[in-house]
Amino acid sequence: MAARRVLKAVLVDLSGTLHIEDLAVPGAQEALKRLRNAPLAIRFVTNTTKECKRSLLERLRKLDFEISEEEIFTSLTAARNLVEQQKVRPMLLIDDSALHDFEGIATQDPNAVVIGLAPEHFNYETLNKAFRLLLDGAPLIAIHKARYYKKKDGLYLGPGPFVTGLEYATDTKATVVGKPSSTFFLEALRSTGCSTDQAIMIGDDCRDDVGGAQNSGMLGILVRTGKYRAGDEEKIDPAPYLICDSFPQAVDHILEQLL
Amino acid sequence: MAARRVLKAVLVDLSGTLHIEDLAVPGAQEALKRLRNAPLAIRFVTNTTKECKRSLLERLRKLDFEISEEEIFTSLTAARNLVEQQKVRPMLLIDDSALHDFEGIATQDPNAVVIGLAPEHFNYETLNKAFRLLLDGAPLIAIHKARYYKKKDGLYLGPGPFVTGLEYATDTKATVVGKPSSTFFLEALRSTGCSTDQAIMIGDDCRDDVGGAQNSGMLGILVRTGKYRAGDEEKIDPAPYLICDSFPQAVDHILEQLL
Repeated sequence: MAARRVLKAVLVDLSGTLHIEDLAVPGAQEALKRLRNAPLAIRFVTNTTKECKRSLLERLRKLDFEISEEEIFTSLTAARNLVEQQKVRPMLLIDDSALHDFEGIATQDPNAVVIGLAPEHFNYETLNKAFRLLLDGAPLIAIHKARYYKKKDGLYLGPGPFVTGLEYATDTKATVVGKPSSTFFLEALRSTGCSTDQAIMIGDDCRDDVGGAQNSGMLGILVRTGKYRAGDEEKIDPAPYLICDSFPQAVDHILEQLL
Repeated sequence: MAARRVLKAVLVDLSGTLHIEDLAVPGAQEALKRLRNAPLAIRFVTNTTKECKRSLLERLRKLDFEISEEEIFTSLTAARNLVEQQKVRPMLLIDDSALHDFEGIATQDPNAVVIGLAPEHFNYETLNKAFRLLLDGAPLIAIHKARYYKKKDGLYLGPGPFVTGLEYATDTKATVVGKPSSTFFLEALRSTGCSTDQAIMIGDDCRDDVGGAQNSGMLGILVRTGKYRAGDEEKIDPAPYLICDSFPQAVDHILEQLL
């Protein structure tokens, strides 16, 4: 247990860690308040491809979480950052509800493709347009590559199959900006001024949250809420730094052991 | 050169070998007549996913090729054969113009997915239906996996990217029935009663025609027409049995050297 670091930042996953759909994880709001009393930068990080920051924020506030927009870092933000760094004009294959996060980005005469979960754009004509841009050398930026996701009435294709199809057609590889990519964690920390060895991540997805964070040099705490299933901790090597029942216990550990 | 075999069957590719769009390869009709005078079974084999046999036949007859429907073996026929062998009810993700070749096949309450080039079916809703069938254990049968194809106004996505996407989503592999799969060549020969070591393939696609045929035990002749580009012959190992300028020269070689 490499616990004796100087901890300066905490990254917290949203869905499955702070809340499950429209229910807060019991005690999570109060635990977040306690965490705020410590000298720690906090960022909320999520792999959304459909929800802009504003709508995430709305849901969290309804559940009485005290969070500001600047503290949220999503895979959409990561994609926007990359677009700005590379100075490209993206064709945006993302859901209309996510367009807010790309306001001000030039998209006419595109020379890049950004792809998230966008059922209404996943048709032959639009994918063919993207394909031709890629053939002309445009970079392919994927929000993430999830195979599928679950809704109440069953499983639905994620963005991954469409990313993979375009990769196959053009013999190229997408840059994946969401968790578990190291770039994602580095970018999420950037505005805190902290380095990865001063940071810890709390999340319910063993591979994407904990494994990704640990691979980028952070500590990772796995919580047994949300999508956690018994045995998930065996999916990564090295194992999670710590496993907790839920977010409040993770906060307790940080306050008692890591400061 | 393993030329001293008893040759009994010739497989001939269509597009790029006998004709290029609406033009016959010079001398090809006459060469086919000469080939018919020899004691050889002839089959015409093609990787079409859009055209049923009937429409292929119509085009060839307009160009004065003497060909009967029974002599044509396409990747659609191969898919139909597999569906019949496996006794499954396919969801047909194929172009409407190809449906003729599946007449009489039960498709209600599907428990398999057959996928060709079907732009009108390549949308999120339909692909999601296919995805759920695959999750339930339905086999995925791909007509072929071409990355893209060329039309006068540019390149278009082939079926390959959509096959690959469904494979990725479900962590399974499609059975690819078209060239260059060995099953394709064996099935094409079945009605001739000949074995692969009694057969030769003539085509313009080095990998799919010549490589595929040779991998299944046949000889292969590469013609320098259609999609052939200088250096194509280096793409396969072992090299093509023979390279000819065009179909008539391939026929000359067969008649003079292999009978």
